[in-house]
Amino acid sequence: MNYHTRKWVKPEDLNANETLFGGKLLAWVDEEAALYAIIQLENAHVVTKYMSSVEFISSARQNDIVEIGIEPVKWGKSSLTLRAEVRNKMTQQPIVKIDEIVMVNLDNNGQPKPHGKTQVEFVSDRIAAQKQQ
Amino acid sequence: MNYHTRKWVKPEDLNANETLFGGKLLAWVDEEAALYAIIQLENAHVVTKYMSSVEFISSARQNDIVEIGIEPVKWGKSSLTLRAEVRNKMTQQPIVKIDEIVMVNLDNNGQPKPHGKTQVEFVSDRIAAQKQQ
Amino acid sequence: MNYHTRKWVKPEDLNANETLFGGKLLAWVDEEAALYAIIQLENAHVVTKYMSSVEFISSARQNDIVEIGIEPVKWGKSSLTLRAEVRNKMTQQPIVKIDEIVMVNLDNNGQPKPHGKTQVEFVSDRIAAQKQQ
Amino acid sequence: MNYHTRKWVKPEDLNANETLFGGKLLAWVDEEAALYAIIQLENAHVVTKYMSSVEFISSARQNDIVEIGIEPVKWGKSSLTLRAEVRNKMTQQPIVKIDEIVMVNLDNNGQPKPHGKTQVEFVSDRIAAQKQQ
Amino acid sequence: MNYHTRKWVKPEDLNANETLFGGKLLAWVDEEAALYAIIQLENAHVVTKYMSSVEFISSARQNDIVEIGIEPVKWGKSSLTLRAEVRNKMTQQPIVKIDEIVMVNLDNNGQPKPHGKTQVEFVSDRIAAQKQQ
Amino acid sequence: MNYHTRKWVKPEDLNANETLFGGKLLAWVDEEAALYAIIQLENAHVVTKYMSSVEFISSARQNDIVEIGIEPVKWGKSSLTLRAEVRNKMTQQPIVKIDEIVMVNLDNNGQPKPHGKTQVEFVSDRIAAQKQQ
Repeated sequence: MNYHTRKWVKPEDLNANETLFGGKLLAWVDEEAALYAIIQLENAHVVTKYMSSVEFISSARQNDIVEIGIEPVKWGKSSLTLRAEVRNKMTQQPIVKIDEIVMVNLDNNGQPKPHGKTQVEFVSDRIAAQKQQ
Repeated sequence: MNYHTRKWVKPEDLNANETLFGGKLLAWVDEEAALYAIIQLENAHVVTKYMSSVEFISSARQNDIVEIGIEPVKWGKSSLTLRAEVRNKMTQQPIVKIDEIVMVNLDNNGQPKPHGKTQVEFVSDRIAAQKQQ
Repeated sequence: MNYHTRKWVKPEDLNANETLFGGKLLAWVDEEAALYAIIQLENAHVVTKYMSSVEFISSARQNDIVEIGIEPVKWGKSSLTLRAEVRNKMTQQPIVKIDEIVMVNLDNNGQPKPHGKTQVEFVSDRIAAQKQQ
Repeated sequence: MNYHTRKWVKPEDLNANETLFGGKLLAWVDEEAALYAIIQLENAHVVTKYMSSVEFISSARQNDIVEIGIEPVKWGKSSLTLRAEVRNKMTQQPIVKIDEIVMVNLDNNGQPKPHGKTQVEFVSDRIAAQKQQ
Repeated sequence: MNYHTRKWVKPEDLNANETLFGGKLLAWVDEEAALYAIIQLENAHVVTKYMSSVEFISSARQNDIVEIGIEPVKWGKSSLTLRAEVRNKMTQQPIVKIDEIVMVNLDNNGQPKPHGKTQVEFVSDRIAAQKQQ
Repeated sequence: MNYHTRKWVKPEDLNANETLFGGKLLAWVDEEAALYAIIQLENAHVVTKYMSSVEFISSARQNDIVEIGIEPVKWGKSSLTLRAEVRNKMTQQPIVKIDEIVMVNLDNNGQPKPHGKTQVEFVSDRIAAQKQQ
């Protein structure tokens, strides 16, 4: 799993117990999953359809740095199922793992649209291919 | 189920498809669940331990008003399991339903602590009882 | 008075005295009043025209939960006058009371438009009535 | 009246009518009033006690620049009463006028404390006076 | 140099060292520079093209009040070069100085457009001139 | 250069020209640089001391995804100089390049403190080394 986006835990991200708010964490994961899907499916009209159950394994405190990892687990016809992990950057301790986040590829009318993708693509390869044409 | 907090869907809450961001919705639900648990357990040291799977049934658009409903489903020894629904205020169409959100009651050291509660209490009753003493 | 929306007082809501910022409180009340008017008048084009004087009775601190109550006091031709109270959820102590918030119903050109409403309506009744037709 | 702080009206500041949210405007005014009082009273423990009624004279739209003016109207023993105006920077059209915002000077226990000030002071004069000593 | 906008340093503006985040400071300066350019060039389509190097001279802490000063240094054909200083309002100690911020005046297609301005204008003079016509 | 954090350009990040605000971009870069320095120097007390001049090469629009790359250019005694690039994730077009961002390692009194680092370290290697001891 590749970890990209890093977040710095700030005062506004904390619950009354002074640990990272569970909901904030889910919002970060969902945004990162959406970005991942948009990049892979080459379509900005992507929405979250389903998120499997979430166990909050450990927490984070103010000024901790967390990183979010995403990887594809299933390439559907008009969907892409992702797996996500968030961990503490300095200790690599897992904070939360989500087995399935189903993102759906939409057309301009908001209806599911086949995306034609079956595997991870790298943006640099796409650009190289375009230049060869 | 009682619906309390209302949210107004604003530009910053939207994904690239111009519908309400799934992650933002989960953050709102988690905050409302935490408030509910804090009020019932009379303890601010409450954290989210588990959230069951989430199906995004319908979406919301800019300027829609959504309302969040929470009700308890299980009173554990040091936990409280809640059920949540979010719906469009004007059409009552459900947006998301979450069967189980497990909130854990903590002591000052962040360890689970029995809360001694077994049913919903109303703040007005608590205050009336205090006055009688 | 019915109390709906609940707010959790967070670090970013505090003034330098570490109490809830008066202006933040007014922003919360104004948003809740707007939501109330939009729901009742069935029109999103509603703006605040007037707010009567505000006495800050008590304050709130970080992690306090406050709840906002709104009720109608006068149904004008194209306006709706509301009364608002904010109180601490756990102690029911009033924080602020505002006697009159005048919301004006606008047409698409931003001009006052009669709303034809004279009393509180419940969304569930409206939906039931639509189904009967 | 001197106008200092300028605000750029952004998407998140708008209501559903696409004009500047009344509550956001009041939050800006209250913050500017608090800053003014802190500077004059040389004490950060200042809170808003009262705001007189507010007429929303005109509105503002996205990308408008508004400026906030504050001036003192009464130097109390432990309070300072301010007057505020917000206007469109480019047209100088008034948006809102508030005749009285009462700020109270507090001690470390949150109790009113005499501030000993009776007129506007300039920070540059205070610094010059300190250097002469 | 005239100082206008004042900012109150809040918890969300601090880095892990509990001093004002450098990037937040630059965002405040850039916004103030853009407002200054929009007012002077009478055009909202203004973008930042260049910022000269930035030395962070001193810092600020929570609840400090900082003020931002902007002045023009060069009137180009389609650009305006500004100088900026941020200082602590209470001590007048400089926090950051930026010698050159180049703002470019754009047309509706995003291309540089001559602005025809060669010196500072006051909005009140513009309005007075309009009335005389 | 490794690119980690990704940002989704949202309505609140845009200037009046509907392109990404220069100041917002600098705030993102500065935060990412601070995170990079904290991870490498194993110390949260890190502040930005200097940023070299910034040319805004191209811009970004709403819903664009940008990614931020950071790499070290000089390991000082108590400082770490970084180079940063921001580019459009989908086109790899550079948006901004900053040659030098000087981060300073501080002790608990806010004074520069030698960090003893001379090259990039990977967190996984550090953790493996700790386990061997």
